[in-house]
Amino acid sequence: MARENANAPYLRNAWYVGAWDDELSKGILARTIMDEPIAFFRDAQGKVGAIEDRCCHRGAALTDGKVVENGLQCGYHGLVFDAKGKCVEIPGQDSIPPMAQVKHYPVVERQGFIWIWMGDPALADESQIIDWPFHDDKKLYPHRKAYLRIRANYLMMIDNLMDLTHLGYVHSKTIGGNPLSHVSAKMDVVRTEKGCKLTRWMENVLPPPTYLKGVPFAGKIDRWQEFEYVLPGSVLQWSGALDVGKGARENRDQYGVHLRLYHAITPETENSSHYLFSVGAHFAQDNPAIVETIFNDTYPTFIEDVEIMNNQQARIDMDPTRPLLAIKADNALQQARRVFMAAYEAEQAMKRQAAE
Amino acid sequence: MARENANAPYLRNAWYVGAWDDELSKGILARTIMDEPIAFFRDAQGKVGAIEDRCCHRGAALTDGKVVENGLQCGYHGLVFDAKGKCVEIPGQDSIPPMAQVKHYPVVERQGFIWIWMGDPALADESQIIDWPFHDDKKLYPHRKAYLRIRANYLMMIDNLMDLTHLGYVHSKTIGGNPLSHVSAKMDVVRTEKGCKLTRWMENVLPPPTYLKGVPFAGKIDRWQEFEYVLPGSVLQWSGALDVGKGARENRDQYGVHLRLYHAITPETENSSHYLFSVGAHFAQDNPAIVETIFNDTYPTFIEDVEIMNNQQARIDMDPTRPLLAIKADNALQQARRVFMAAYEAEQAMKRQAAE
Amino acid sequence: MARENANAPYLRNAWYVGAWDDELSKGILARTIMDEPIAFFRDAQGKVGAIEDRCCHRGAALTDGKVVENGLQCGYHGLVFDAKGKCVEIPGQDSIPPMAQVKHYPVVERQGFIWIWMGDPALADESQIIDWPFHDDKKLYPHRKAYLRIRANYLMMIDNLMDLTHLGYVHSKTIGGNPLSHVSAKMDVVRTEKGCKLTRWMENVLPPPTYLKGVPFAGKIDRWQEFEYVLPGSVLQWSGALDVGKGARENRDQYGVHLRLYHAITPETENSSHYLFSVGAHFAQDNPAIVETIFNDTYPTFIEDVEIMNNQQARIDMDPTRPLLAIKADNALQQARRVFMAAYEAEQAMKRQAAE
Repeated sequence: MARENANAPYLRNAWYVGAWDDELSKGILARTIMDEPIAFFRDAQGKVGAIEDRCCHRGAALTDGKVVENGLQCGYHGLVFDAKGKCVEIPGQDSIPPMAQVKHYPVVERQGFIWIWMGDPALADESQIIDWPFHDDKKLYPHRKAYLRIRANYLMMIDNLMDLTHLGYVHSKTIGGNPLSHVSAKMDVVRTEKGCKLTRWMENVLPPPTYLKGVPFAGKIDRWQEFEYVLPGSVLQWSGALDVGKGARENRDQYGVHLRLYHAITPETENSSHYLFSVGAHFAQDNPAIVETIFNDTYPTFIEDVEIMNNQQARIDMDPTRPLLAIKADNALQQARRVFMAAYEAEQAMKRQAAE
Repeated sequence: MARENANAPYLRNAWYVGAWDDELSKGILARTIMDEPIAFFRDAQGKVGAIEDRCCHRGAALTDGKVVENGLQCGYHGLVFDAKGKCVEIPGQDSIPPMAQVKHYPVVERQGFIWIWMGDPALADESQIIDWPFHDDKKLYPHRKAYLRIRANYLMMIDNLMDLTHLGYVHSKTIGGNPLSHVSAKMDVVRTEKGCKLTRWMENVLPPPTYLKGVPFAGKIDRWQEFEYVLPGSVLQWSGALDVGKGARENRDQYGVHLRLYHAITPETENSSHYLFSVGAHFAQDNPAIVETIFNDTYPTFIEDVEIMNNQQARIDMDPTRPLLAIKADNALQQARRVFMAAYEAEQAMKRQAAE
Repeated sequence: MARENANAPYLRNAWYVGAWDDELSKGILARTIMDEPIAFFRDAQGKVGAIEDRCCHRGAALTDGKVVENGLQCGYHGLVFDAKGKCVEIPGQDSIPPMAQVKHYPVVERQGFIWIWMGDPALADESQIIDWPFHDDKKLYPHRKAYLRIRANYLMMIDNLMDLTHLGYVHSKTIGGNPLSHVSAKMDVVRTEKGCKLTRWMENVLPPPTYLKGVPFAGKIDRWQEFEYVLPGSVLQWSGALDVGKGARENRDQYGVHLRLYHAITPETENSSHYLFSVGAHFAQDNPAIVETIFNDTYPTFIEDVEIMNNQQARIDMDPTRPLLAIKADNALQQARRVFMAAYEAEQAMKRQAAE
């Protein structure tokens, strides 16, 4: 059994979920990503920009400013910056020196996500952004979005999502049920182009309480759980259940519980992260309260995870070089970490090559 | 007058009071001692264990878990550890690799104390544990136990307890009275096998208010105060008073104020400590409210000490190498520090010898 | 355009405002200046002293003590120190060793200020203290004093006061008005013996709301603003307005708004400061509520500055070596910084000379 380390370094050349679109309802959002304070803002034309949250003039936080016609205006002396970080106005002077600019980050607003590229802007390829069409159709896929801050390295949360054995322990009081049923349930893990995917079927079992709140199952059900890790910080969840005998393996698009969850984890610092998730319900669309019910059962469960991870990271921080002991149940999370480390090594190799 | 430093290093091979028994009423207690996070737990058989509060699997805090039949179960993935730190169960796999273990600490539960040994387990000798029979007899010695955290090195609190001249200044509003009466009262300090002991008699004096709450003395009293420092972190207090003329020096076991206090100070970090104390009243046993009255007068007094020490340590921390100036009134505390440093040097010498 | 750095070093040989006289109403004040914890106290004779807030005996904070006949008494063991830092009493011993002393600081109480000298006591020349006669005459100059703590280097606040272009941005909701009117208003900046002074006239303009609360101007006014920076940490403000046509440039001592504000900024640490300011009203003296009204309009405005600067310093602290970009509107603040740096360099040169 291999030993590995807990804190992941940063993968730079990648798209991250920087924010939910509705977090920008007030026009400006301050968020630190990979140690860099960033000012997200929606300009007068409705387009989202992301620039360094530090004015080049006297270092003030640009998020203390406001959106004006030509961009984001510093709240201290009124310099204005556009979405490319270029200073377009300095009150009291006509010419703007070329060095009057701040760092900018490529951003794409799509399907409710504000995606941000943290690496070399020349490499930012929008076609690489993960597709999540379920946010587009609020009628067929009513959903709710949320944010939690985690005081742990972001791969800790990927570990958590790619490991279903913890459900019985961390969530024993909510969605867990019998711990050993989770540990012994068979899982398939396969590599994908940009990550890996675990699939688990629990067939001919009793429905958990949360499911019964959504669908009045009369008897036993066939349940599925699919978790796909996609580089660098996303886990795409598809889970649900149908009455036994409905042929769930062949066609899950029938009436039953049918959930689509998006989990985005974006590094804030080496040992803290942003966790943005959405819970979508692809069933009972005539009852808009269903997605709310599912969300209200899910949210406290995720907070249980966050509390475990906060304490876990505090232990890791006491000596980050101490090894961890892998066990068999780690299979999927280990594969996700291997995918991540391969991508990281490739990026480092590319950097070294560029430097030669 | 010699100059000396304030912060004491750790003495490893020694028994410390890790907790009061009743702090384990919920089964688990998280407490850091000498920079090491420790999980205290009472197992299914009622026996107390103390193991490292960090799971060897993914670093989670074991105190986030729960007590199960075979030990303490990690709250993240269900690994179970016994009181020796040995992993006895890994959900999802049959064999347990030998490296699946966490550090354990010898513990002894006795007379209401949970004693913990912080050094080499092979040297842990239970016969060296301090005897405090007064906790055993709740009828003859009704008592109350308490905990305070101090943001100061633990020897600062030993200093405090071995120095009675501060009573008139720190506690002028509570138990202090006339400052100079404390400074001028004669003290005897003698070395003992494992520490030193100061004895002070104040004869033919008026009773302090707290004493009058316990016993309706009609006139003047003879008071005694004995404080015995015992390595590494205990101070045993015996104090009380009888009516003048009752021959207190010959026989203190008569009706009058008669108190037994245990002060245990255990290092949390270099500049923070756990202070566990008990207040026992060996008089007026027919009135169970007396010990409560004495405790309620004592507790705020100890908090006054803690506040002074917190600010003192903050000053020391600004430059821990700055010397302090010894004065005559430091006699007893200096002797206690000398006893401590001799024990520390002996331990270091033993270590060097073992390394050769 | 020159680039410069944000955090100013300490100028030692200079008088600073350590406190307002009324901050010593309880006899003792703990305040850290230039990283040094200081105990200000008013002795039994009413004279103010300033000594190191750390007892030479065991490091306790002297501000945990109390004022006694001969000085400040340590709250732990009763040592007494006079305003020169000399220990004059050690309970329990007759002789006081010469090393029983703490650092002392020259202080002068004058015109409501407690001035403190942070450098070589031999160089402390009281004639160099800034004169502010307006505090002496509470009838002609009713005033109110206040304190704010800033989590920013103290020159950041000097920058702020010597720059009137920020009014329109930071204070747009209070005293700011049209931002560009502030940027375009002509300013004169002149060097003075110990600093520099900016003067700005806004003539034939509408009175701002705060002014109208003080004086019922019927029409337009002529306004003046003078801000004089005086080394190392003071800005003397004279501002006000008269009805147009009253000849304000020739004689401002007529009925109209007439304010005298003192701004003192004293470094606490490299990136935090004490901001002590007073607001004086030299008009409508028959209405004592006027100064209160002006103060109540000013105080929240200053808090807006503090919030901007706290975030600014947090950005600067991420990399204090990153340069800042000067713009034209920085004229006055740049001159103030040049004055400061020249004084700092002169002090360093003097030190080097003394060391040779």
